[in-house]
This record gives sequence, C-alpha cells and structure tokens, in this order.
Amino acid sequence: MSVLLAREQALTLHELLAQANTAHLDYDIAAGSGVPDPLIRGIGSLAGAGASEISFLADARLAHQLENCAAAAIVMTAAARDSMRGRQPPYCVVLCSQPYLMYALLAQWFDRMRLKRIASGVHPTALVDDGALLEDDVGIGPYCVVETGARIGGGSRVGAGCTIGTGSVVGRQCLLYSHVTLYHNVRLGARVIVHSGAVLGADGFGFAPDPRSADAAWVKIGQLGGVTVGDDVEIGANTTIDRGAIDDTVIGDGVKLDNQIMIGHNVRVGEHSAMAACVGVAGSTTIGRRCTLGGAAMISGHLVIGDDVHVSGGTAITTNIDKPGRYTGVYPAAEHSQWQRNAAVASQLAQLRRRLRQLEKQGRTD
Amino acid sequence: MSVLLAREQALTLHELLAQANTAHLDYDIAAGSGVPDPLIRGIGSLAGAGASEISFLADARLAHQLENCAAAAIVMTAAARDSMRGRQPPYCVVLCSQPYLMYALLAQWFDRMRLKRIASGVHPTALVDDGALLEDDVGIGPYCVVETGARIGGGSRVGAGCTIGTGSVVGRQCLLYSHVTLYHNVRLGARVIVHSGAVLGADGFGFAPDPRSADAAWVKIGQLGGVTVGDDVEIGANTTIDRGAIDDTVIGDGVKLDNQIMIGHNVRVGEHSAMAACVGVAGSTTIGRRCTLGGAAMISGHLVIGDDVHVSGGTAITTNIDKPGRYTGVYPAAEHSQWQRNAAVASQLAQLRRRLRQLEKQGRTD
Amino acid sequence: MSVLLAREQALTLHELLAQANTAHLDYDIAAGSGVPDPLIRGIGSLAGAGASEISFLADARLAHQLENCAAAAIVMTAAARDSMRGRQPPYCVVLCSQPYLMYALLAQWFDRMRLKRIASGVHPTALVDDGALLEDDVGIGPYCVVETGARIGGGSRVGAGCTIGTGSVVGRQCLLYSHVTLYHNVRLGARVIVHSGAVLGADGFGFAPDPRSADAAWVKIGQLGGVTVGDDVEIGANTTIDRGAIDDTVIGDGVKLDNQIMIGHNVRVGEHSAMAACVGVAGSTTIGRRCTLGGAAMISGHLVIGDDVHVSGGTAITTNIDKPGRYTGVYPAAEHSQWQRNAAVASQLAQLRRRLRQLEKQGRTD
Repeated sequence: MSVLLAREQALTLHELLAQANTAHLDYDIAAGSGVPDPLIRGIGSLAGAGASEISFLADARLAHQLENCAAAAIVMTAAARDSMRGRQPPYCVVLCSQPYLMYALLAQWFDRMRLKRIASGVHPTALVDDGALLEDDVGIGPYCVVETGARIGGGSRVGAGCTIGTGSVVGRQCLLYSHVTLYHNVRLGARVIVHSGAVLGADGFGFAPDPRSADAAWVKIGQLGGVTVGDDVEIGANTTIDRGAIDDTVIGDGVKLDNQIMIGHNVRVGEHSAMAACVGVAGSTTIGRRCTLGGAAMISGHLVIGDDVHVSGGTAITTNIDKPGRYTGVYPAAEHSQWQRNAAVASQLAQLRRRLRQLEKQGRTD
Repeated sequence: MSVLLAREQALTLHELLAQANTAHLDYDIAAGSGVPDPLIRGIGSLAGAGASEISFLADARLAHQLENCAAAAIVMTAAARDSMRGRQPPYCVVLCSQPYLMYALLAQWFDRMRLKRIASGVHPTALVDDGALLEDDVGIGPYCVVETGARIGGGSRVGAGCTIGTGSVVGRQCLLYSHVTLYHNVRLGARVIVHSGAVLGADGFGFAPDPRSADAAWVKIGQLGGVTVGDDVEIGANTTIDRGAIDDTVIGDGVKLDNQIMIGHNVRVGEHSAMAACVGVAGSTTIGRRCTLGGAAMISGHLVIGDDVHVSGGTAITTNIDKPGRYTGVYPAAEHSQWQRNAAVASQLAQLRRRLRQLEKQGRTD
Repeated sequence: MSVLLAREQALTLHELLAQANTAHLDYDIAAGSGVPDPLIRGIGSLAGAGASEISFLADARLAHQLENCAAAAIVMTAAARDSMRGRQPPYCVVLCSQPYLMYALLAQWFDRMRLKRIASGVHPTALVDDGALLEDDVGIGPYCVVETGARIGGGSRVGAGCTIGTGSVVGRQCLLYSHVTLYHNVRLGARVIVHSGAVLGADGFGFAPDPRSADAAWVKIGQLGGVTVGDDVEIGANTTIDRGAIDDTVIGDGVKLDNQIMIGHNVRVGEHSAMAACVGVAGSTTIGRRCTLGGAAMISGHLVIGDDVHVSGGTAITTNIDKPGRYTGVYPAAEHSQWQRNAAVASQLAQLRRRLRQLEKQGRTD
C-alpha cells in the first residue's frame, strides 16, 4: 500500500514495536542482511509491502511469499523462520508467537498516528444542554446536540452531528464517529466505538392488534426500556439497536457488531459475541457468549441461543440452540437452469419421500 | 424494571387508567388486600414489576406468575381472575377483556409523560426557507433544513438535523426523530412517526442499458415520481423508501415498518400491513392490506401479493400470491456437518427424482 | 402522473428532444392528427399519460395500450409504429430504435429542470477547514463539515449535513445528497452520485482473537486502507462501503449500488456491475465486470466472482464462480403447512439418498 506516515513521524523498528505492543507480547528482533533498525512508515501485505514498511505472516499458506517480500521487517513465528533454513533474509525478522495479534496492535498504532483526533473541548456550534454532564478531556464535534441529563465520560470523543438524547450515557474513552444517534436512556460502557449512521434506542417494533377495529389497525405499544451496552463494544455503520419494551436491550462486554445489523427490542447478546454485517436478531432473543453470526444470518424472535454457537452466513435460525457448534442452513446456489430443476423437486420433497416409502414397502412384500 | 416516574409525576391507579385509556376500553378495578388506590410509577412484567408498578397478564401461559407478582396492580381478563378461585391477591386487579391493548395504552401514557417533547417553535439554528409553510404549534429542532414549498402540519415535531426537501409535506401531529431525510415531493399523512436515519424519496434504482456501449454502461433513468405515505404510519430507523419512477411509491394508512426495511420504487403497500426489520420489497410490487412480512423476508419486483398474506421471516417470495394464508420458504438449519450432507443432495434433487422414477418403472415391469 | 412543469418552463416536443437527447440517438418525429409540435410538461406511462405529456413504448407486450393512450407524443420503434397499420394516431410519434434509452434521457431532463439544485458557493453554516481545497463552481450545503486535506472537484454539489473527512476527495460534477458521511481517505471519481445516509470508509470488520484471553476477547485491527470509487458510480441511500484493512476497497467505474448495500473491506467490484438493494458482499471478495446481483443476494468473503455473472435475488454465493451465467439458490416458498412437510424431508436428504441407493442395490440383486 502507499506509505502511511511522513518520514518525520515514523519510528524505527525497535521504537515502533516498543510503542505499539500495548498487549506486552513477547517478541525478538533479528536483523537481516539490510538495515538493522529500519525506519517503518507503514504496514503492507507480504505481496505489497515496500522498503519502509513492516509486514507479517499469519497464514502458513502464504509462507512462499516470504522469499520475495520487499518489506523492511516481517513478523512471523519461530516455525516460519525455521522454514527458511538458515538463509539470512534481507529484512528484519520479528519473532513472535502471535504474529496476527502483533499485526493488529501495529495497525492500531498507525491508525492512531495518522488520524487527526477530534479535539478536546466543545465545538462552538455544539449544543450541550446545561443539564448535561461532560467529564474531563471530552471532545464534542460541530453540530452535535447533547440533551439534558446526558453524561459523556472522560476522554471520549463525539463526532460531528451526533445527537445524544435525554439521560443517555457515553462511558469513558468512547469514540462516536459523525452522525451517530443515541435516543434517550441509552447507556454505553467504556471504550465503546460507534460508527456513523448507527441508531441506538429507537422504539422496538411493538403493536397490539386492535380487536375492535374492522380493518385490523395496530395500536402502538410505548417502548419504555432503554439500551445498555457494555465495555469494549464496537458498533458498525448504520447498525440499529432498538430500546426494550419494558426492560433494557442488553449488549454484553466485548461484543463486536459489524455494519447494518439490526438488534430487536429486549434482545440480550452475551459477552464477546461477534456478528458480521447485515445480521438481524428479532425481538426478545438471547444470544450466548462467544457466539459468532456470519453475514446476513437471521435469528428469529423469542429464542435462546447458547454459548459458543457459530452460525454460518445467510443462515436462518428459527429454533433454540443449546449445543455449541457450527450451524448452517443455506440452500446451495447453482446455475439457474439446474436450480430450477432442483427447486421444483424441493417443492415436492414430502411426496418424494412417500413414493420412496411405497417402494420400500413393495420391496419388503415382493 | 426501574421505576419510571418521580413520585410527584405519578398518578394513582384510578387516575392513571382514566387518563391512559384513550381507546375507551371497558374496565373495572377490584382492590386487593393492599393499598386500594396505589400510586403507579411504572410498568413491569409479571416477573419483574415492583410495588409501585402496574403489570398485565396477556398470555395465559404466564398465569402461574400471578401468584408471586409484586406489582401494585395487574390488568387481566375475568377468566384469569376466576382462575385465582376467590383468593384475594395483595394487588389490585384491573379487569379488562383486552389486557394487551390496555398495556399498550398504559405504555403510551408513560412514554408521553417521561419524554421531554421537542418544544414548540423553530430552534434558532433551524433553516426554514421563506417559501416553506409551518402550521400552528410546530416544533423544529436544531440544525434542521426545511426547503421551499415544504409544509409542516399542525402539532408536528421535527427532531434535530432533519432535512425536509422542496415541496415535501409533513402532516398534522407527526413525529420525526433526529436525522430523518425527506427528499423533495415526499408527502406524509397525519400522525406519522419516522425514526432516525430513515430516508424517504431517494432515487429508485432505475438504469437503462446503453446498447451502444461496448462495456455495458448504464444510463440513469431520472426518477420523477414521489412518495406518498398515509395516516398513522410508523417508519423504523434507517429504513429507506424510494421515490417512484413516474408515479408515486405509496404506503397505505396504518402501515407499520420496522428498522432497515427497503421499499423499492413504485411499490404500493396496502393499509395496515406490517413488516418486521430487514425486509426488502423490490420495485413495482404491490402488497395487499393487512399483510405481515417477517424479518428479512424478501419480495421480488413486479409481483402482486393479495390481502391477508403472511410471509414468514427469511422467506423469499418470487411469484404472485393471491390466496390469503401463511407462506414460508426457509431452508432448515442444522449442524454444519449434517447440513453439508443434506446440501450435497439438495444440489442433485432432480437426479434423485429421476432415479426414483426409474425404480418405480422397474417395480411396475417386474 | 401529475404534470411536472409549469407551462412557462415547458418546451415543445421538438425543442425538448433536441435538449434532452444528450446521447445523440437518432430519432424522427411524425405528427399525428393533433397538435404537430405540442408543449410537453411531463412524462407518463402509456396508461397514465395526459395531453401535455410524452410517453414511450419499451416493452412490446404493452403495444395494445398504444390505441387509447392520451399522451401528446409517444416514443416507439419503427416496428411498433408499423404494427399500427397506417392509422394516424392523435399523438405525435417519435421513432427511435432505443425508446427505453430515450425515456431515460427525457426523465433525466425533467429531473434536472424541476430540481432546485444546491446553489454554488459555500453556505455560511458549512465548516470548511482552511486546509481543504474547493475547486470552481462547488456548492456546499448548510451544516456540512469538510476537514483538512479534503478536495471537492469542480461543479460538485454537497447536500446539507454531509461530513467529508481528512484527505478525502470528491471528484468533478459529483452530487452528494444530505447526510452523506465520507470518513478520511475516501476518494470518489467524477460524476458520482451518493444518496443520503450512505457511509463510506467506516472501519472494516477486523479483529484478532486474543489467544491469551480466557473469555475469547477480540483485539481490534486498525483499518489503514481507504476507499476508491471510480467515475459514474451511483451509491444508494444508507449503503455502507468499508475502508480496506491495508489496501483500498475499490468500486470500479460505472458501478451502480442500490440502497442498504454492504460492501466489506478489501472488496473489489468490477466496472459496470450493478447490485440491487440489501446485497451484502463480505470482506476481500472480488466481483467481476458487468455482473448483476439481485436484491438481498449475499456473497461470502474471500471469493472471486468472474465477469458477467448474474446472481438472482436472495441467493447466497459461498464458492468462487468463474463461468459467466445466471446463478440462483433460493429455497422455494410455499404455503406454510406444505413447507413444513417439505422442510422436514429437506433435513433428511442424505438419509433419503441412502435409502434410494439401497433400493437400487436390491433392484440389481433381485
């Protein structure tokens, strides 16, 4: 990729690792035949990295790319280094038992360095109600609206044009990108990231049929609960999390939600579960801990999904799942004409089974 | 749940029902062994309600929770009360033949009470074009933009950062939450609620292939129609309703749309139909009256779906439906290894049927 | 439809075609028995057009509507005109070998005429950083925020409340409707249209599992790439395109994306491909040129889809496709009770095949 930092911003390899390794991973640097402590200005893939970039080998299937990699340094495991059979490469080797995790930390460091953070302080165009509380070192961007009773935790940043409703709480060290909407009584924990266009706390979809109405009109059920989001949660762009009907909708600590996800009212998502984009979880369903839901998975309402359940992309879950494991339910795609022939039979499966049973019976009586 | 209202805001049970029962349901209050007309500060579920809350029994399967419920009052049917066999409970009993509907009305009342309504008047930062018309008692929030020819009906409230395009109409007593976008020539009826991030009137997806182009370029078809939304419609967060190509896209009276729904251009949705989240209705399809579409249902374009059709969640509808009833089309999810075995056969169903026919033929000729 | 333009804005048929035909299509006007060069104030369908409107016949199955059409003029092919067998209609006939394309151009003309364009110049409430560059004839709407290093190309219009992040580029002659969010380092080509609520450049969904964490915590991977969008692209309302992890996410020239589409990080979409609403393309997948994806199609991550592949609506693609053609994978919907019977068998397909094999074996040994 293009180099990220100007030379004057960049660090040497040793300095960079010392700063970026906030998780205190063990690592060891072995110089190559080139510069022993090169200046690192960016991160690149093994195939794309240039002479002032660091790369990483996290997938053993890419080990053949080590040979021609032009990076200044590569993070890899001891096993990968050993596969090079003693040849000294031109790049520095950063030995680390968790190269993918080290890459994550390096990428975080570069992301922090190049981003002009939202400044501390309240932009003159932001409208912060006198009844709202801003803790220390808070940054509120232009055209934000913060209503009465809201609280913004220390070190948090709120991007342009966000609205924070009455009584809502943003925890410490949070980052809300521009155009985030928190309705009233939405509570975020610490270090929560919310991307643009996300809407938290809109009314759940609750209507009572009016049995006195000839034309089946719906009567709105006021949605009185709130939304509670734990610590270290990330919420993607244009994702929506509805407020609870009576109690809160709850997102556990460490949950990661991609873009355009819909979480219905009263849903509870367990700690460290992750959902890829376009997932829908219907109302009053409970998702366990450490679950993963693939893109566009759809979970029906009023279900209980246990811990460590992994749902494949595009799969509709319509019953409870209490056993950990991977679940899938996608009808296989095929060339259209072949699909037509198969789908016609799929509409007659019960009949097909009857005919099979009939034959089996005949077989037994022959 | 946590009690909603401060003591000084709360009403006694008799006062509360008198105010909340805007639908004039018949009801009767029977005191229990406790306070005869208790102060009610919130609504709780049977399992969660506390001593200053009202609860309700709408689902007979929860009747066993009546015994230990700590609520100050419970709404229930006469049948439910009779099942208590004469024991006088500690709570007041509100007899009502429609407890779920009464709950809906009570929840509406609490929602109105605790919400700081958007104030009447135009916020000084709102930009309202001189050619726009605001009727009586309109509230326009900060950073709104209302363009020329727009009209906002009496009693309506428009949240922060909404944009109302040229010639668009918001009817009487509407509520638009913050960050709603109405393009030009979008017309809302009375008492419409639109949640944050909804976009009404963006261009329909219309392109003509350019047959003169070697690389199959698309030529945009200007989208000249508008959007017409009836009375008493609710539109969820981040839902999009595209403008018509020539005539309007039309949403009938009383329609309820959840979050992240996509309504394509020229679609017509009949009165009192309801769609759960993530539904997509492709262009030029007509949906009848009193239909319900489950979450993530997908309706193809240019179809006609009749009245009283109920589509299950996750179901793709690709042909017209003229018969009322429930329709489903979800491939059953299973443990991944089992799914793999079944899906492999699903790709060969036509062949399977051929083999079955062959056996049947042999059977007949044996 | 309702007439679009006031009389004083409208043109005569000859003038209109001369102005609207920006693609220089060949056409020929034959007067009917009515006004030879009528004033045209709008476009209508064959069934709906009135006496001051132009219509078109693009679908031969609608030819029977020619007889009673009340339009002032109709665009049609010579073949359609010939089917009228010499009878002189009351309307003018515009002969054109591409009536649908001519309609597209006429609709564009009317759309341009009636829309109050965002004015040139920077609205006084827009916040444009001193380090941003605005080329000639740029219009920036109210409450926009344009950050340092951003560039807005000549002739472009940016609607109310958009945010353009650090270093992002809007090409020449672009149109961004209100509430569009471009994060940092998002680059749009020329003549790109972006609808309201779209978010370009939010972080891709990248997390490394932390193997040292007992509770399976996720560590965020900084997303360092950007988004590159080609020329003549249209992006629908509330669509999201994530920034790349290391390199850019790339949308090719002429691509058309409908509403509520999700494009994951590192995805590459080839020139002139088109996607209907609610499609999801997971991370690192490559889509070829001239592909079309039907509504709610879901493409898994890390796939390669070749050129000229057409995926039906609602279809999940989970494997590479290198052969052009149409692909479908939707389980057929049916009345619920019938679906139940078939779905039960669908969960036992492997077993069904085993039983069939058993019978075949018996048949051979009989």
